[in-house]
Amino acid sequence: MATMEELKLRVRELENELIKCKQKQCATEQLHRPKIEKMSAEVVDSNPYSRLMALKRMGIVDNYESIRTFTVAVVGVGGVGSVTAEMLTRCGIGKLLLFDYDKVELANMNRLFFQPHQAGLSKVEAAEHTLRYHILMTYSRNHGGLEDDKPVDLVLSCVDNFEARMAINTACNELGQTWMESGVSENAVSGHIQLINPGETACFACAPPLVVAANIDEKTLKREGVCAASLPTTMGVVAGILVQNVLKYLLKFGRVSYYLGYNAMQDFFPSMAMKPNPQCNDRHCRRQQEVYKEAERPKNEVIQVEEEEVLHEDNEWGIELVSEEANEETQAAAAAVADLPEGITVAYTIPMNKGDGEMVEETEQSLEDLMAQMRKL
Amino acid sequence: MATMEELKLRVRELENELIKCKQKQCATEQLHRPKIEKMSAEVVDSNPYSRLMALKRMGIVDNYESIRTFTVAVVGVGGVGSVTAEMLTRCGIGKLLLFDYDKVELANMNRLFFQPHQAGLSKVEAAEHTLRYHILMTYSRNHGGLEDDKPVDLVLSCVDNFEARMAINTACNELGQTWMESGVSENAVSGHIQLINPGETACFACAPPLVVAANIDEKTLKREGVCAASLPTTMGVVAGILVQNVLKYLLKFGRVSYYLGYNAMQDFFPSMAMKPNPQCNDRHCRRQQEVYKEAERPKNEVIQVEEEEVLHEDNEWGIELVSEEANEETQAAAAAVADLPEGITVAYTIPMNKGDGEMVEETEQSLEDLMAQMRKL
Repeated sequence: MATMEELKLRVRELENELIKCKQKQCATEQLHRPKIEKMSAEVVDSNPYSRLMALKRMGIVDNYESIRTFTVAVVGVGGVGSVTAEMLTRCGIGKLLLFDYDKVELANMNRLFFQPHQAGLSKVEAAEHTLRYHILMTYSRNHGGLEDDKPVDLVLSCVDNFEARMAINTACNELGQTWMESGVSENAVSGHIQLINPGETACFACAPPLVVAANIDEKTLKREGVCAASLPTTMGVVAGILVQNVLKYLLKFGRVSYYLGYNAMQDFFPSMAMKPNPQCNDRHCRRQQEVYKEAERPKNEVIQVEEEEVLHEDNEWGIELVSEEANEETQAAAAAVADLPEGITVAYTIPMNKGDGEMVEETEQSLEDLMAQMRKL
Repeated sequence: MATMEELKLRVRELENELIKCKQKQCATEQLHRPKIEKMSAEVVDSNPYSRLMALKRMGIVDNYESIRTFTVAVVGVGGVGSVTAEMLTRCGIGKLLLFDYDKVELANMNRLFFQPHQAGLSKVEAAEHTLRYHILMTYSRNHGGLEDDKPVDLVLSCVDNFEARMAINTACNELGQTWMESGVSENAVSGHIQLINPGETACFACAPPLVVAANIDEKTLKREGVCAASLPTTMGVVAGILVQNVLKYLLKFGRVSYYLGYNAMQDFFPSMAMKPNPQCNDRHCRRQQEVYKEAERPKNEVIQVEEEEVLHEDNEWGIELVSEEANEETQAAAAAVADLPEGITVAYTIPMNKGDGEMVEETEQSLEDLMAQMRKL
């Protein structure tokens, strides 16, 4: 049996060990730092804003601080969405809304951002923890009461299936919400981003979405014992060009891309702009086209794409494609679909059992529903 | 004074608290998992390799598992180097050697990877901690005794100044070591990657390095109260195209790029290939050119660049430029330098106080020194 002295010694030992353990924990999992009121441009090692504010001195961005006034929604927090959220956070975005119903799996470890110990957590939970406790510490987000009712400035689609994209498209057409779409191919070696401004550019229902390869619903694939390939490289590039386009759009610098593709096999980056289809199946798209025509000017002051050498000017969808040679991969993929310009192929397999227009009407979930769900979290 | 019973109670309390603290810590900072012997292609959520091995089934890569036999050295673990290291780790690279003499600062938080609580740690230390304890858990690295003497398969330059690039160039020319260079401009809106195979392609001393904007030593800038701008987007894209090129080179798929630029303002991606300069100041480069000529075939079986429409075929440096319109930024930058093809400008300001050839000869530190230093760590 322990003596009084032995017990006292044990208490001291345990107390010391506990202090050490708690200190170590603090180092790994620090709490919020106070909100930094002003983005300083001072060049000191302790200023997390110096390299961003330098964009003003370099003459690239007129008003970098305005980044803190913007709210961006990221739908889909997977390989592209998580990196997108991290980039926006590190750029000092005002507010970030994250949507995802999926959980982190070890099978996601071949992409950036999520870590093995987060397996089993919801993707939103895990992303919020990393962004808020580990990275956001030095940044701040606007939590003003009134601002919660402010609409989002931009919706980013980083989802991995056709139905989710179509749901976002329907909601954004209804609300007249500008959004950007992103995607990577199932073979992991191509991807794209696209800016959709309802009424001004082709929406997702105007034409079969165009990228360099086909995309397949991951859940369907897994059931069949196969899965889509993915690479952190391709997803990093797609997230990078997506958030770069977001920065250019929100902070008004450079040329905002309407469509930018990435073909990793050939290091080929096609770009184009697409006009909306006056016979679009989505009635909200047709309404937005009327609104846009009446306004007779770019709604969001998006910088117009300069004239480039345009091929295939007279095709059905108003596709404008800059001159580039097609590669074997895209040619092979395009072979299955008739009447598409060289180098352009259908991105998603549109479910065959749905009639014309139905896939638009069937989608019940609006962006407002998504937002309402997010607020509840 | 405490009684025997009180002391016993305190010991129990402390023991319980300590267990809880340690459990929590384990959840945040798990230890190594055992090495996974084989990269499995099984499609289950718990398999971290399934999405990578799917590249084989998709017909993109013949032998993805061979990634584990390669050793890559990353020199410079900053905005580009850290993301490069994370991507390579998540792709399952065999062995990674990291070199950097710098420390993590809060001013680096506008890029991906490093987190605020790592401020003050050396970049290599912080990167190793994240990669080994948080990400590598599910991956494994080869730690075989013999393999430590195996030369690296590829050196990646992710440094931020001219002198460091020239040191790497000199060492690689001497060793006949294939390497890839990467860089981002001081205004944060352009970058490039370049493959240098001594004797086959232009080395860093053959010609003024060519990218879309100037780069300046960060230390010099900081002394003057200014700093280069940087963005996580641009660095993410550059790291992405760099590691994609590494994968294509090592795993022999797609077309390896000799030079790929990224201009974020215009979403313009120039590509080209450059022959070495027979009058290069670096004698090891000239020697490698002789070796290459004698071999009369691509040394590392790099897939040859296909013939594209080539402009400016008869320029001094053998620059081959694919047809693309030049943009305002590059035109402005090119104005300062005569005799460069349209759209191509000098990347780095070569220090004026050094004579011809001197900058090569002055560099004492070889790659072997760097490697020796790494082994000591």
